[in-house]
Amino acid sequence: MSRFKSKYFTMEEADALEYAAAELDFFSKEAELSCSEIGDGNLNYVFKIADAKTGKSLIIKQAGPCARIDETIKVSPDRNRIESDILKIQYELSEGLVPELYKYDEIMNCCVMEDLSDYTILRKALIEHKKFPHFAEQITDFLVKTLLLTSDVVINHKGKKDLVKNFINPELCEITEDLVYTEPFFNCNRNDVFEPTRPFAEKEFWNNEELLLETAKLKFEFLTNAQALLHGDLHTGSIFVKEDSIKVIDPEFAFFGPAGYDIGNVIANLIFAYENAEAAIEDKASKEDYKNYLEATIVKIIDLFIQKFNKTYDEKVRERVATYKGFKEYYLDSIIRDTSAVTGLELVRRILGMAHVKDITGIEDIDKRARAEKICLLAGKNFILNRKEIKTGKDFIQVVRNAESSI
Amino acid sequence: MSRFKSKYFTMEEADALEYAAAELDFFSKEAELSCSEIGDGNLNYVFKIADAKTGKSLIIKQAGPCARIDETIKVSPDRNRIESDILKIQYELSEGLVPELYKYDEIMNCCVMEDLSDYTILRKALIEHKKFPHFAEQITDFLVKTLLLTSDVVINHKGKKDLVKNFINPELCEITEDLVYTEPFFNCNRNDVFEPTRPFAEKEFWNNEELLLETAKLKFEFLTNAQALLHGDLHTGSIFVKEDSIKVIDPEFAFFGPAGYDIGNVIANLIFAYENAEAAIEDKASKEDYKNYLEATIVKIIDLFIQKFNKTYDEKVRERVATYKGFKEYYLDSIIRDTSAVTGLELVRRILGMAHVKDITGIEDIDKRARAEKICLLAGKNFILNRKEIKTGKDFIQVVRNAESSI
Repeated sequence: MSRFKSKYFTMEEADALEYAAAELDFFSKEAELSCSEIGDGNLNYVFKIADAKTGKSLIIKQAGPCARIDETIKVSPDRNRIESDILKIQYELSEGLVPELYKYDEIMNCCVMEDLSDYTILRKALIEHKKFPHFAEQITDFLVKTLLLTSDVVINHKGKKDLVKNFINPELCEITEDLVYTEPFFNCNRNDVFEPTRPFAEKEFWNNEELLLETAKLKFEFLTNAQALLHGDLHTGSIFVKEDSIKVIDPEFAFFGPAGYDIGNVIANLIFAYENAEAAIEDKASKEDYKNYLEATIVKIIDLFIQKFNKTYDEKVRERVATYKGFKEYYLDSIIRDTSAVTGLELVRRILGMAHVKDITGIEDIDKRARAEKICLLAGKNFILNRKEIKTGKDFIQVVRNAESSI
Repeated sequence: MSRFKSKYFTMEEADALEYAAAELDFFSKEAELSCSEIGDGNLNYVFKIADAKTGKSLIIKQAGPCARIDETIKVSPDRNRIESDILKIQYELSEGLVPELYKYDEIMNCCVMEDLSDYTILRKALIEHKKFPHFAEQITDFLVKTLLLTSDVVINHKGKKDLVKNFINPELCEITEDLVYTEPFFNCNRNDVFEPTRPFAEKEFWNNEELLLETAKLKFEFLTNAQALLHGDLHTGSIFVKEDSIKVIDPEFAFFGPAGYDIGNVIANLIFAYENAEAAIEDKASKEDYKNYLEATIVKIIDLFIQKFNKTYDEKVRERVATYKGFKEYYLDSIIRDTSAVTGLELVRRILGMAHVKDITGIEDIDKRARAEKICLLAGKNFILNRKEIKTGKDFIQVVRNAESSI
């Protein structure tokens, strides 16, 4: 019996090469395979296997039994099963906007999937001030198809409950509950606060009872509202782009939660890119040009989401009560309200919490970074507090503009 | 090997007797056991085994593989696993307000539990116009302990997610989704509408767009809000009473849903008893006396629930954000609002839907029954539409009084 079929072990490059040749039907027998480990995360090993003859390639992503930097941190390898299950579902729902899954191996705890070496990570591209004119169109396709089609408006309710069960994700949800909804809103020792920003955080956040109450309501929404099958971590580092295509990756945080969570993450991370442009582009015309591009992208994402949501809803609705007069508007309204709230939470947690974003930490000038952080925080606060009034693409960008002009 | 340990079969009385003697430690070897099948439901076989010598007795409840009246209706025996799991949990949480579970047998698909022959079913007792002065105190203990202690206010979030997974209950939730939230609100052929009530239903319900929209919102709450571990079917036929004790039975509909669902079911079914008294008690003083007792019970249930909820919340809260100023009030408010809505839904569905209650169908005088049905429907509509304004025990009973005086 193949040594890959008996018992899990952590693969090295040579093992992954042998695995690709022996366990997969992907390459021909004449292939000249090479392997390199390209993982830069903390939990997984990522091997790229390529055939020098044909140029064909694939990725093997293996879950380690513990964190790579600290063997005492154990992480359930079940996240790899969740990732492969959701990749299959999202591939079908979004018609190819995630990597194709070739195989999931429950013994070796690995997924074999499409290689995306010809794509770039969106966050990196945005920090380099590159433009992707089709991105709003593509990401709204992904959002509407993965979110609305897994909600009780469309999906069979019994089938959905089986999916909810399959995607119960206690460990990774706990990370979000702590890092997004809780720790940034008090002086938690896991927070990583840029010193010039600290007085602002203390005054406007940690002692703001009105804001704290709203974050509590939102945390309970996150804990209890099994609305749609989320990606769960849809920042610009989870999106691969090239000229004519996107691929959404790393869905290991997937679970059934409020649909606005995914949309809000996309919007907030574009706002980080916007504030990066504001702080980092010297030339005035170039800055204005790039900020205009990002503004248009943000506005389009909200407005196209609304437009496609309405169209898809009318085409696909299967739940009788969801056809009652006024329900579609009520339901969409609640999703956009959650989108605003999560945009705000993500803006705040990436500034005050443990995990930061390169768009902001990469701003070298201390004063400019401090200003960018305050803008994100102020906008974040308003996205949370005024979420019921923020309804269109224009409303979303106006929150950011207002924050810029008052800091 | 015992024949009970190899393969499931549907037991007859003689099998159950042998099972009790051979498989359980409950009776002594000298016991003089007798067995009778006392099940009157459609899905389960219920055997009472008693020892003539000591008077000790127990119940064996076995899930059949199909409905008793129609073998083509298959029902997942998983409901028996759910029932035994939740009995254990609720027994501990409520400190004994459900039957004690002696054994769950996954091969024979049966639960062995405490015999409650010395108790009466509450619905039957209320129709006989009996009083239980401690009921409000007892049922609010059950409600606060089973609901608040399984909510994210108190429970460990990761542990809760495992429970959510364990109590995903697609088949029985579908019954509620259809029979409570959908069918009563249109002219569905499964509905069983009392002819004198039909014109009222057509005018006030099936063509009332405002009401329909609210029922759609509530159905989505039921479908998505995993707030607390519900009993799921807490009408007065699921409650055993005697002078000094209650036992809540038949939790096979259990799942994580909106806490107000259970409370609303209790209140609505007391309102049915109240309208039974209004229609069926001839003597004016007796009628007034019994209605006063039921009014006081309803008022007390709401007000004691609120009082005990606040006390238990302060004592047991473990979630940091749930201690933020204003959150407890917000959370309780949402539960009472849901309670009002579900009170309304249950009042409507037991009149217009498929499953009726004896309190109303047992009213022999056609005109009196028609009046009782209209009162329930009108009150039901107002409990749904005005749920944001109905907050205290007095508010709840006032809705019923108003309906009585306008019909």
